[in-house]
Amino acid sequence: MSERFFLTAPPHDGRAELVGDEARHLARVLRAEPGDTVQVFDGHGLAWPARIVAIGRDRVSLEVGPPLNAPAPRPRLTLAVALPKGDRQKWLVEKLTELGCARLVPLVTTRGVAEATPAAIDRLGRGVIEACKQCGRNLLMEIAPAQSLAAVLGGLDASTLAVVADPSGLPAGPVLGSHAGPLLALVGPEGGFTTEELHVAEAAGCRRIAVAPHVLRIETAAIAVAAAVWATEADAAALAATP
Amino acid sequence: MSERFFLTAPPHDGRAELVGDEARHLARVLRAEPGDTVQVFDGHGLAWPARIVAIGRDRVSLEVGPPLNAPAPRPRLTLAVALPKGDRQKWLVEKLTELGCARLVPLVTTRGVAEATPAAIDRLGRGVIEACKQCGRNLLMEIAPAQSLAAVLGGLDASTLAVVADPSGLPAGPVLGSHAGPLLALVGPEGGFTTEELHVAEAAGCRRIAVAPHVLRIETAAIAVAAAVWATEADAAALAATP
Repeated sequence: MSERFFLTAPPHDGRAELVGDEARHLARVLRAEPGDTVQVFDGHGLAWPARIVAIGRDRVSLEVGPPLNAPAPRPRLTLAVALPKGDRQKWLVEKLTELGCARLVPLVTTRGVAEATPAAIDRLGRGVIEACKQCGRNLLMEIAPAQSLAAVLGGLDASTLAVVADPSGLPAGPVLGSHAGPLLALVGPEGGFTTEELHVAEAAGCRRIAVAPHVLRIETAAIAVAAAVWATEADAAALAATP
Repeated sequence: MSERFFLTAPPHDGRAELVGDEARHLARVLRAEPGDTVQVFDGHGLAWPARIVAIGRDRVSLEVGPPLNAPAPRPRLTLAVALPKGDRQKWLVEKLTELGCARLVPLVTTRGVAEATPAAIDRLGRGVIEACKQCGRNLLMEIAPAQSLAAVLGGLDASTLAVVADPSGLPAGPVLGSHAGPLLALVGPEGGFTTEELHVAEAAGCRRIAVAPHVLRIETAAIAVAAAVWATEADAAALAATP
Protein backbone atom coordinates (compact mmCIF):
# COMPACT_ATOMS: atom_id res chain seq x y z
CA MET A 1 0.00 0.00 0.00
CA SER A 2 1.61 3.28 -1.10
CA GLU A 3 -0.76 5.50 0.88
CA ARG A 4 0.49 8.09 3.37
CA PHE A 5 -1.11 8.78 6.75
CA PHE A 6 -0.83 11.62 9.21
CA LEU A 7 0.23 10.98 12.80
CA THR A 8 -1.09 13.38 15.42
CA ALA A 9 1.63 12.17 17.83
CA PRO A 10 5.16 11.22 16.75
CA PRO A 11 6.33 7.61 17.00
CA HIS A 12 7.72 6.48 20.36
CA ASP A 13 9.92 3.40 20.83
CA GLY A 14 9.18 2.22 17.28
CA ARG A 15 5.43 2.41 17.80
CA ALA A 16 2.79 4.86 16.60
CA GLU A 17 -0.97 5.10 16.36
CA LEU A 18 -3.32 6.49 13.76
CA VAL A 19 -6.52 7.90 15.25
CA GLY A 20 -9.78 9.48 14.08
CA ASP A 21 -10.31 10.02 10.34
CA GLU A 22 -6.89 8.66 9.46
CA ALA A 23 -7.56 5.38 11.26
CA ARG A 24 -11.09 5.06 9.87
CA HIS A 25 -9.88 5.77 6.33
CA LEU A 26 -7.21 3.08 6.54
CA ALA A 27 -9.35 0.48 8.30
CA ARG A 28 -12.78 0.98 6.74
CA VAL A 29 -12.27 2.59 3.34
CA LEU A 30 -9.04 0.91 2.34
CA ARG A 31 -9.84 -2.25 4.34
CA ALA A 32 -6.25 -2.61 5.49
CA GLU A 33 -5.21 -5.65 7.50
CA PRO A 34 -2.49 -6.34 10.08
CA GLY A 35 0.80 -6.85 8.25
CA ASP A 36 0.04 -4.26 5.52
CA THR A 37 2.65 -1.53 5.12
CA VAL A 38 2.01 2.20 4.76
CA GLN A 39 3.95 5.44 5.11
CA VAL A 40 3.28 7.83 7.99
CA PHE A 41 4.36 11.44 8.56
CA ASP A 42 4.20 13.68 11.58
CA GLY A 43 3.55 17.06 9.97
CA HIS A 44 6.76 18.37 11.52
CA GLY A 45 8.97 17.20 8.66
CA LEU A 46 9.56 13.48 9.08
CA ALA A 47 8.14 10.36 7.45
CA TRP A 48 8.49 6.68 8.39
CA PRO A 49 7.66 3.33 6.89
CA ALA A 50 5.12 1.52 9.06
CA ARG A 51 3.53 -1.89 9.37
CA ILE A 52 0.04 -2.39 10.76
CA VAL A 53 0.05 -4.35 14.03
CA ALA A 54 -3.57 -4.08 15.13
CA ILE A 55 -6.78 -2.46 13.93
CA GLY A 56 -9.26 -1.20 16.50
CA ARG A 57 -12.52 0.67 16.24
CA ASP A 58 -11.04 4.19 15.71
CA ARG A 59 -7.41 3.39 16.13
CA VAL A 60 -4.71 1.62 14.14
CA SER A 61 -1.50 0.50 15.88
CA LEU A 62 1.69 0.56 13.89
CA GLU A 63 5.25 -0.65 14.11
CA VAL A 64 7.47 2.08 12.72
CA GLY A 65 10.89 1.81 11.01
CA PRO A 66 13.69 4.38 10.93
CA PRO A 67 12.80 7.81 9.41
CA LEU A 68 12.79 7.93 5.60
CA ASN A 69 14.24 11.44 5.48
CA ALA A 70 16.09 14.16 7.30
CA PRO A 71 13.87 17.17 8.03
CA ALA A 72 13.96 19.70 5.15
CA PRO A 73 14.61 23.34 6.00
CA ARG A 74 11.43 25.25 6.82
CA PRO A 75 10.14 26.95 3.65
CA ARG A 76 10.39 30.72 3.71
CA LEU A 77 7.12 32.00 2.26
CA THR A 78 4.21 33.30 4.35
CA LEU A 79 1.16 34.24 2.29
CA ALA A 80 -1.38 36.58 3.86
CA VAL A 81 -4.47 36.28 1.70
CA ALA A 82 -7.95 37.79 1.76
CA LEU A 83 -9.69 34.41 1.48
CA PRO A 84 -11.82 33.71 -1.59
CA LYS A 85 -15.18 32.01 -1.16
CA GLY A 86 -16.28 28.39 -1.35
CA ASP A 87 -14.35 25.90 -3.41
CA ARG A 88 -11.69 28.45 -4.24
CA GLN A 89 -10.54 28.30 -0.59
CA LYS A 90 -10.05 24.56 -0.87
CA TRP A 91 -8.04 24.95 -4.08
CA LEU A 92 -5.93 27.70 -2.61
CA VAL A 93 -4.91 25.52 0.33
CA GLU A 94 -4.25 22.45 -1.81
CA LYS A 95 -2.08 24.33 -4.28
CA LEU A 96 -0.15 26.36 -1.70
CA THR A 97 0.62 23.15 0.18
CA GLU A 98 1.87 21.46 -2.99
CA LEU A 99 3.94 24.52 -3.90
CA GLY A 100 5.75 24.61 -0.57
CA CYS A 101 4.26 27.66 1.14
CA ALA A 102 5.18 27.71 4.87
CA ARG A 103 2.18 29.54 6.30
CA LEU A 104 -1.17 30.91 5.20
CA VAL A 105 -2.62 33.85 7.11
CA PRO A 106 -6.28 34.66 6.36
CA LEU A 107 -6.14 38.42 5.88
CA VAL A 108 -8.95 40.70 7.06
CA THR A 109 -9.38 43.53 4.53
CA THR A 110 -11.87 46.27 3.74
CA ARG A 111 -13.22 44.56 0.63
CA GLY A 112 -12.80 40.95 1.78
CA VAL A 113 -15.85 38.69 1.53
CA ALA A 114 -15.03 35.42 3.27
CA GLU A 115 -14.80 35.27 7.04
CA ALA A 116 -12.13 33.01 8.49
CA THR A 117 -14.28 31.51 11.24
CA PRO A 118 -12.74 28.86 13.51
CA ALA A 119 -14.76 26.25 11.54
CA ALA A 120 -13.28 27.56 8.27
CA ILE A 121 -9.75 27.51 9.70
CA ASP A 122 -10.34 23.94 10.85
CA ARG A 123 -11.55 22.94 7.35
CA LEU A 124 -8.51 24.57 5.77
CA GLY A 125 -6.27 22.64 8.16
CA ARG A 126 -7.85 19.35 7.07
CA GLY A 127 -7.20 20.41 3.47
CA VAL A 128 -3.53 20.87 4.31
CA ILE A 129 -3.29 17.34 5.69
CA GLU A 130 -5.01 15.88 2.62
CA ALA A 131 -2.66 17.75 0.29
CA CYS A 132 0.40 16.68 2.32
CA LYS A 133 -0.67 13.05 2.08
CA GLN A 134 -1.01 13.38 -1.67
CA CYS A 135 2.04 15.46 -2.56
CA GLY A 136 4.57 13.85 -0.24
CA ARG A 137 5.07 16.89 1.97
CA ASN A 138 5.99 16.01 5.56
CA LEU A 139 5.82 19.46 7.17
CA LEU A 140 2.27 20.83 7.42
CA MET A 141 1.58 24.26 5.99
CA GLU A 142 0.51 26.33 8.98
CA ILE A 143 -2.92 27.95 8.89
CA ALA A 144 -2.72 31.00 11.13
CA PRO A 145 -5.72 32.66 12.79
CA ALA A 146 -7.22 35.53 10.77
CA GLN A 147 -5.30 38.79 11.11
CA SER A 148 -5.72 42.39 10.07
CA LEU A 149 -3.28 44.03 7.69
CA ALA A 150 -1.92 46.09 10.59
CA ALA A 151 -1.29 42.97 12.68
CA VAL A 152 0.47 41.16 9.83
CA LEU A 153 2.66 44.18 9.06
CA GLY A 154 3.32 44.78 12.75
CA GLY A 155 4.90 41.33 12.98
CA LEU A 156 7.45 42.01 10.23
CA ASP A 157 11.11 41.75 11.12
CA ALA A 158 14.08 43.26 9.31
CA SER A 159 15.15 39.99 7.67
CA THR A 160 11.81 39.55 5.87
CA LEU A 161 11.14 40.82 2.35
CA ALA A 162 7.48 41.88 2.17
CA VAL A 163 5.64 42.18 -1.13
CA VAL A 164 2.10 42.98 -2.26
CA ALA A 165 0.68 41.35 -5.39
CA ASP A 166 -0.59 44.23 -7.51
CA PRO A 167 -0.98 44.61 -11.29
CA SER A 168 0.91 47.94 -11.10
CA GLY A 169 3.93 46.32 -9.46
CA LEU A 170 7.40 45.46 -10.67
CA PRO A 171 8.01 42.07 -12.33
CA ALA A 172 7.99 39.52 -9.52
CA GLY A 173 11.02 37.51 -10.58
CA PRO A 174 13.81 40.04 -10.05
CA VAL A 175 12.31 41.29 -6.77
CA LEU A 176 11.85 37.80 -5.31
CA GLY A 177 15.14 36.53 -6.73
CA SER A 178 17.05 39.32 -4.99
CA HIS A 179 16.32 37.96 -1.52
CA ALA A 180 17.20 34.64 0.08
CA GLY A 181 15.56 35.13 3.48
CA PRO A 182 11.97 34.94 4.75
CA LEU A 183 9.23 36.30 2.50
CA LEU A 184 5.82 37.72 3.28
CA ALA A 185 3.43 38.17 0.36
CA LEU A 186 0.08 39.94 0.65
CA VAL A 187 -2.80 39.10 -1.69
CA GLY A 188 -5.89 41.30 -1.54
CA PRO A 189 -9.57 40.53 -2.12
CA GLU A 190 -11.45 40.66 -5.44
CA GLY A 191 -11.55 44.36 -6.14
CA GLY A 192 -8.10 44.72 -4.62
CA PHE A 193 -6.71 46.45 -1.59
CA THR A 194 -8.00 49.97 -1.01
CA THR A 195 -5.63 52.85 -1.77
CA GLU A 196 -5.28 53.35 1.97
CA GLU A 197 -4.39 49.70 2.55
CA LEU A 198 -1.75 49.88 -0.17
CA HIS A 199 -0.29 52.99 1.44
CA VAL A 200 -0.17 51.29 4.82
CA ALA A 201 1.57 48.28 3.27
CA GLU A 202 4.09 50.40 1.42
CA ALA A 203 4.77 52.55 4.48
CA ALA A 204 5.65 49.28 6.27
CA GLY A 205 8.19 48.51 3.54
CA CYS A 206 6.18 46.26 1.20
CA ARG A 207 7.13 46.30 -2.47
CA ARG A 208 4.48 45.87 -5.16
CA ILE A 209 5.03 42.96 -7.50
CA ALA A 210 3.04 41.87 -10.56
CA VAL A 211 2.75 38.11 -10.97
CA ALA A 212 0.89 37.91 -14.30
CA PRO A 213 -0.19 40.09 -17.21
CA HIS A 214 -3.90 40.05 -16.29
CA VAL A 215 -6.27 40.75 -13.42
CA LEU A 216 -6.00 37.66 -11.27
CA ARG A 217 -8.48 35.96 -9.04
CA ILE A 218 -7.33 35.77 -5.43
CA GLU A 219 -6.29 32.13 -5.54
CA THR A 220 -4.51 32.55 -8.87
CA ALA A 221 -2.45 35.45 -7.52
CA ALA A 222 -1.51 33.52 -4.37
CA ILE A 223 -0.58 30.38 -6.33
CA ALA A 224 1.43 32.45 -8.83
CA VAL A 225 3.39 34.07 -5.99
CA ALA A 226 4.22 30.67 -4.48
CA ALA A 227 5.32 29.33 -7.88
CA ALA A 228 7.38 32.45 -8.58
CA VAL A 229 9.14 32.13 -5.21
CA TRP A 230 10.14 28.57 -6.00
CA ALA A 231 11.19 29.46 -9.56
CA THR A 232 13.48 32.21 -8.29
CA GLU A 233 14.77 30.15 -5.35
CA ALA A 234 17.99 29.25 -7.14
CA ASP A 235 18.80 32.90 -7.84
CA ALA A 236 18.22 33.80 -4.22
CA ALA A 237 20.35 30.89 -3.02
CA ALA A 238 23.16 31.94 -5.34
CA LEU A 239 22.89 35.46 -4.01
CA ALA A 240 23.02 34.27 -0.41
CA ALA A 241 26.12 32.23 -1.20
CA THR A 242 27.89 35.36 -2.44
CA PRO A 243 29.94 36.80 0.42
CA MET B 1 -21.97 48.25 -16.61
CA SER B 2 -18.35 47.11 -16.27
CA GLU B 3 -18.95 43.67 -17.80
CA ARG B 4 -16.96 42.40 -20.77
CA PHE B 5 -18.45 40.45 -23.68
CA PHE B 6 -16.92 38.33 -26.40
CA LEU B 7 -17.55 39.16 -30.07
CA THR B 8 -17.49 36.25 -32.49
CA ALA B 9 -17.04 38.73 -35.39
CA PRO B 10 -15.00 41.95 -35.12
CA PRO B 11 -16.71 45.34 -35.32
CA HIS B 12 -17.37 46.76 -38.78
CA ASP B 13 -18.09 50.44 -39.49
CA GLY B 14 -18.49 51.17 -35.78
CA ARG B 15 -21.08 48.42 -35.32
CA ALA B 16 -20.91 44.97 -33.75
CA GLU B 17 -23.29 42.24 -32.60
CA LEU B 18 -23.31 39.91 -29.66
CA VAL B 19 -24.91 36.57 -30.43
CA GLY B 20 -25.78 33.32 -28.63
CA ASP B 21 -24.84 32.95 -24.96
CA GLU B 22 -23.18 36.34 -24.83
CA ALA B 23 -26.33 38.09 -26.05
CA ARG B 24 -28.61 36.05 -23.77
CA HIS B 25 -26.43 36.73 -20.74
CA LEU B 26 -26.47 40.47 -21.35
CA ALA B 27 -30.15 40.72 -22.24
CA ARG B 28 -31.78 38.18 -19.94
CA VAL B 29 -29.47 37.71 -16.96
CA LEU B 30 -28.16 41.25 -16.63
CA ARG B 31 -31.37 42.77 -18.05
CA ALA B 32 -29.44 45.37 -20.02
CA GLU B 33 -31.29 48.08 -21.92
CA PRO B 34 -30.54 50.16 -25.01
CA GLY B 35 -28.16 52.96 -24.03
CA ASP B 36 -26.24 50.83 -21.49
CA THR B 37 -22.48 50.66 -22.05
CA VAL B 38 -20.27 47.56 -21.91
CA GLN B 39 -16.82 46.50 -23.06
CA VAL B 40 -16.39 44.02 -25.90
CA PHE B 41 -13.33 42.08 -27.08
CA ASP B 42 -12.68 40.02 -30.18
CA GLY B 43 -10.41 37.29 -28.81
CA HIS B 44 -7.71 38.38 -31.24
CA GLY B 45 -6.26 41.03 -28.94
CA LEU B 46 -8.50 44.09 -29.12
CA ALA B 47 -11.19 45.54 -26.86
CA TRP B 48 -13.66 48.34 -27.47
CA PRO B 49 -16.16 50.37 -25.49
CA ALA B 50 -19.68 49.74 -26.76
CA ARG B 51 -23.18 51.09 -26.30
CA ILE B 52 -26.27 48.94 -26.72
CA VAL B 53 -28.42 50.04 -29.65
CA ALA B 54 -31.00 47.27 -29.84
CA ILE B 55 -31.81 44.03 -28.03
CA GLY B 56 -33.30 41.17 -30.02
CA ARG B 57 -34.20 37.60 -29.14
CA ASP B 58 -30.66 36.12 -29.33
CA ARG B 59 -28.79 39.12 -30.59
CA VAL B 60 -27.64 42.45 -29.15
CA SER B 61 -26.65 45.26 -31.54
CA LEU B 62 -23.89 47.59 -30.43
CA GLU B 63 -22.36 50.89 -31.43
CA VAL B 64 -18.60 50.55 -30.92
CA GLY B 65 -16.01 53.26 -30.11
CA PRO B 66 -12.31 53.31 -31.01
CA PRO B 67 -10.22 50.37 -29.68
CA LEU B 68 -9.18 50.66 -26.04
CA ASN B 69 -5.77 49.10 -26.63
CA ALA B 70 -3.10 48.18 -29.15
CA PRO B 71 -2.77 44.41 -29.58
CA ALA B 72 -0.27 42.96 -27.08
CA PRO B 73 2.46 40.67 -28.43
CA ARG B 74 1.39 37.04 -28.60
CA PRO B 75 2.45 35.28 -25.39
CA ARG B 76 5.17 32.70 -25.87
CA LEU B 77 4.17 29.68 -23.79
CA THR B 78 2.54 26.55 -25.20
CA LEU B 79 1.62 24.00 -22.55
CA ALA B 80 1.08 20.41 -23.66
CA VAL B 81 -0.72 18.74 -20.77
CA ALA B 82 -2.10 15.26 -20.12
CA LEU B 83 -5.52 16.58 -19.07
CA PRO B 84 -6.70 15.93 -15.52
CA LYS B 85 -10.28 14.82 -14.91
CA GLY B 86 -13.47 16.71 -14.12
CA ASP B 87 -13.32 20.05 -12.37
CA ARG B 88 -9.54 20.08 -12.49
CA GLN B 89 -9.76 20.62 -16.26
CA LYS B 90 -11.91 23.67 -15.76
CA TRP B 91 -9.49 25.07 -13.21
CA LEU B 92 -6.52 24.39 -15.42
CA VAL B 93 -8.03 26.38 -18.28
CA GLU B 94 -9.15 29.26 -16.08
CA LYS B 95 -5.75 29.64 -14.42
CA LEU B 96 -3.66 29.22 -17.59
CA THR B 97 -5.81 31.88 -19.28
CA GLU B 98 -5.30 34.27 -16.35
CA LEU B 99 -1.56 33.58 -16.31
CA GLY B 100 -1.10 34.41 -19.99
CA CYS B 101 -0.46 30.99 -21.56
CA ALA B 102 -0.75 31.20 -25.37
CA ARG B 103 -1.89 27.70 -26.20
CA LEU B 104 -2.99 24.52 -24.43
CA VAL B 105 -2.45 21.20 -26.20
CA PRO B 106 -4.23 18.20 -24.65
CA LEU B 107 -1.46 15.62 -24.61
CA VAL B 108 -2.13 11.95 -25.28
CA THR B 109 0.15 9.87 -23.03
CA THR B 110 0.49 6.27 -21.93
CA ARG B 111 -0.82 6.90 -18.41
CA GLY B 112 -3.27 9.68 -19.26
CA VAL B 113 -6.85 9.26 -18.01
CA ALA B 114 -8.98 12.01 -19.56
CA GLU B 115 -9.83 11.89 -23.24
CA ALA B 116 -9.92 15.20 -25.08
CA THR B 117 -13.11 14.54 -27.04
CA PRO B 118 -14.45 17.28 -29.33
CA ALA B 119 -17.10 17.97 -26.67
CA ALA B 120 -14.39 18.37 -24.03
CA ILE B 121 -12.36 20.69 -26.29
CA ASP B 122 -15.49 22.75 -26.87
CA ARG B 123 -16.12 22.99 -23.11
CA LEU B 124 -12.53 24.06 -22.50
CA GLY B 125 -12.92 26.75 -25.18
CA ARG B 126 -15.95 28.16 -23.39
CA GLY B 127 -13.88 28.19 -20.20
CA VAL B 128 -11.25 30.29 -21.96
CA ILE B 129 -13.85 32.87 -22.99
CA GLU B 130 -15.25 33.07 -19.47
CA ALA B 131 -11.78 33.56 -18.00
CA CYS B 132 -10.90 36.21 -20.62
CA LYS B 133 -14.05 38.14 -19.76
CA GLN B 134 -13.13 38.06 -16.09
CA CYS B 135 -9.38 38.72 -16.20
CA GLY B 136 -9.32 41.39 -18.92
CA ARG B 137 -7.47 39.29 -21.46
CA ASN B 138 -8.35 40.17 -25.07
CA LEU B 139 -6.51 37.39 -26.91
CA LEU B 140 -8.07 33.96 -26.40
CA MET B 141 -5.85 31.14 -25.20
CA GLU B 142 -5.91 28.60 -28.02
CA ILE B 143 -7.14 25.08 -27.23
CA ALA B 144 -5.48 22.79 -29.77
CA PRO B 145 -6.82 19.38 -30.78
CA ALA B 146 -5.38 16.49 -28.74
CA GLN B 147 -1.92 15.42 -29.88
CA SER B 148 0.48 12.61 -29.16
CA LEU B 149 3.88 13.34 -27.64
CA ALA B 150 5.49 12.47 -30.99
CA ALA B 151 3.27 14.96 -32.84
CA VAL B 152 3.97 17.77 -30.34
CA LEU B 153 7.72 17.14 -30.45
CA GLY B 154 7.66 16.78 -34.24
CA GLY B 155 6.34 20.34 -34.50
CA LEU B 156 9.26 21.85 -32.56
CA ASP B 157 11.38 24.46 -34.32
CA ALA B 158 14.89 25.58 -33.45
CA SER B 159 13.79 28.85 -31.81
CA THR B 160 11.65 27.07 -29.19
CA LEU B 161 12.92 26.04 -25.77
CA ALA B 162 11.19 22.80 -24.79
CA VAL B 163 10.95 21.65 -21.18
CA VAL B 164 9.36 18.77 -19.29
CA ALA B 165 8.06 19.29 -15.77
CA ASP B 166 9.67 16.55 -13.70
CA PRO B 167 10.63 16.38 -10.01
CA SER B 168 14.14 15.23 -11.01
CA GLY B 169 14.70 18.32 -13.17
CA LEU B 170 16.80 21.44 -12.78
CA PRO B 171 15.33 24.47 -10.99
CA ALA B 172 12.86 26.02 -13.44
CA GLY B 173 13.84 29.66 -12.97
CA PRO B 174 17.35 29.68 -14.43
CA VAL B 175 16.35 27.40 -17.34
CA LEU B 176 13.29 29.48 -18.28
CA GLY B 177 15.05 32.78 -17.61
CA SER B 178 17.83 31.89 -20.05
CA HIS B 179 15.52 32.03 -23.07
CA ALA B 180 13.45 34.88 -24.49
CA GLY B 181 11.80 33.04 -27.40
CA PRO B 182 8.89 30.61 -27.70
CA LEU B 183 8.50 27.98 -24.99
CA LEU B 184 6.94 24.55 -25.02
CA ALA B 185 6.34 22.90 -21.66
CA LEU B 186 5.17 19.30 -21.28
CA VAL B 187 3.21 18.19 -18.22
CA GLY B 188 2.54 14.49 -17.83
CA PRO B 189 -0.36 12.57 -16.26
CA GLU B 190 -0.74 11.55 -12.60
CA GLY B 191 1.90 8.86 -12.28
CA GLY B 192 4.14 10.80 -14.65
CA PHE B 193 5.51 10.19 -18.09
CA THR B 194 6.87 6.68 -18.69
CA THR B 195 10.65 6.30 -18.85
CA GLU B 196 10.29 5.80 -22.58
CA GLU B 197 8.27 9.00 -23.00
CA LEU B 198 10.89 10.94 -21.04
CA HIS B 199 13.62 9.52 -23.28
CA VAL B 200 11.69 10.50 -26.40
CA ALA B 201 11.22 14.03 -25.04
CA GLU B 202 14.88 14.38 -24.11
CA ALA B 203 16.03 12.99 -27.44
CA ALA B 204 13.95 15.77 -29.04
CA GLY B 205 15.86 18.36 -26.98
CA CYS B 206 13.53 18.83 -23.99
CA ARG B 207 15.13 19.83 -20.71
CA ARG B 208 13.70 18.58 -17.40
CA ILE B 209 12.66 21.32 -14.98
CA ALA B 210 11.33 21.05 -11.43
CA VAL B 211 8.66 23.61 -10.58
CA ALA B 212 8.06 22.84 -6.91
CA PRO B 213 9.53 20.83 -4.03
CA HIS B 214 6.73 18.23 -4.00
CA VAL B 215 4.85 15.81 -6.22
CA LEU B 216 2.40 18.03 -8.04
CA ARG B 217 -1.02 17.34 -9.42
CA ILE B 218 -1.25 17.89 -13.15
CA GLU B 219 -2.99 21.25 -12.97
CA THR B 220 -0.65 22.50 -10.23
CA ALA B 221 2.41 21.67 -12.33
CA ALA B 222 0.95 23.38 -15.40
CA ILE B 223 -0.06 26.48 -13.43
CA ALA B 224 3.35 26.61 -11.74
CA VAL B 225 5.11 26.48 -15.11
CA ALA B 226 2.98 29.35 -16.43
CA ALA B 227 3.66 31.43 -13.31
CA ALA B 228 7.39 30.65 -13.46
CA VAL B 229 7.53 31.73 -17.11
CA TRP B 230 5.98 35.07 -16.25
CA ALA B 231 8.21 35.50 -13.18
CA THR B 232 11.35 34.94 -15.25
CA GLU B 233 10.09 37.01 -18.20
CA ALA B 234 12.14 40.03 -17.21
CA ASP B 235 15.36 37.99 -17.09
CA ALA B 236 14.67 36.57 -20.53
CA ALA B 237 13.87 40.02 -21.92
CA ALA B 238 17.11 41.41 -20.50
CA LEU B 239 19.00 38.52 -22.06
CA ALA B 240 17.36 39.13 -25.44
CA ALA B 241 18.32 42.80 -25.22
CA THR B 242 21.99 41.86 -24.73
CA PRO B 243 23.68 42.02 -28.12
